[in-house]
Amino acid sequence: MQILFITSNEHKFKEVKEILGSFEIEVLHQKMNYSEIRADDVEEVALESAKTLFSIIKKPLVVEDTGLFIDVLKGFPGAYSGWVQKKLGNNGILKLMENESRRDAHFKTCVGYADEKGCRTFVGKVDGRISIEEQGKQGFGYDPIFIPNTENNTFAENETLKNRISHRFNAFAAFAKWYKA
Amino acid sequence: MQILFITSNEHKFKEVKEILGSFEIEVLHQKMNYSEIRADDVEEVALESAKTLFSIIKKPLVVEDTGLFIDVLKGFPGAYSGWVQKKLGNNGILKLMENESRRDAHFKTCVGYADEKGCRTFVGKVDGRISIEEQGKQGFGYDPIFIPNTENNTFAENETLKNRISHRFNAFAAFAKWYKA
Repeated sequence: MQILFITSNEHKFKEVKEILGSFEIEVLHQKMNYSEIRADDVEEVALESAKTLFSIIKKPLVVEDTGLFIDVLKGFPGAYSGWVQKKLGNNGILKLMENESRRDAHFKTCVGYADEKGCRTFVGKVDGRISIEEQGKQGFGYDPIFIPNTENNTFAENETLKNRISHRFNAFAAFAKWYKA
Repeated sequence: MQILFITSNEHKFKEVKEILGSFEIEVLHQKMNYSEIRADDVEEVALESAKTLFSIIKKPLVVEDTGLFIDVLKGFPGAYSGWVQKKLGNNGILKLMENESRRDAHFKTCVGYADEKGCRTFVGKVDGRISIEEQGKQGFGYDPIFIPNTENNTFAENETLKNRISHRFNAFAAFAKWYKA
């Protein structure tokens, strides 16, 4: 089986290829920049993006949107995580979290799927906390500052583990089960 | 003369009423929440919003989008200033700027106008710097932490002055001159 994944992010492609590969789904990659709507939630972004892209490409496809939601920052950077990462980086987030004991956060991914019959979304979430400093060199984005609740290390310290328990794994696993059924 | 201004922000309505009033243009206010596109620039947001709203309302109208762009933060919070203000507030910005000597920033407003003939944009900008702490209670948003280059006080310390020299004044003054001509 195959599925077309539209993203301009090489890291995401690599991760999704590995995740869906473990479900015996081959990922075809189309690199494409597209305008996302402004929405506070990754589900709305993924759904609208899948719809819009299907209307252009006219082939079954998946997209994904991911956000890091930090409780004490009212969900910042949320659905704007990619943009905030480019502007402030992990150092900016750590600065905002300085001397802050409430460090709860979660990652959320929404996969948007569209074909001629319509759209579907699949959500994956992982709870954790923001580390005190950057730890690890693997992964990308906020991985060096996010410690999942089941672990003592950041996602950037164990990419293999990340790809088995992450928000992105959970979302694409849900998609894969439905897609294969 | 009259013009319809679409915004959900009461502070902006009050300001624009005063600014356009000084050009003898009466402002009719329609409160309306609308989806903005994701764009890094206020011009694109204002232009697209004006177009979209005109297609719904079918009356000549103006909208505006404003951003605070901080040089050392690569233009953060920029076109997402409203959203960032809700999440981090001025304290968040001051925390990001802690121990930072490079404090240059600018405010930029773009007015988008649309009627049956098409769209136009009018830009206003003011250069300044981010204060060390919040100063003043007037105005709204980032006003208490922004000192225009010609002054020693923040916009929140002198609202009357703000409405004569601000980014929003400059943008709406440009619109008013064109609209009346």
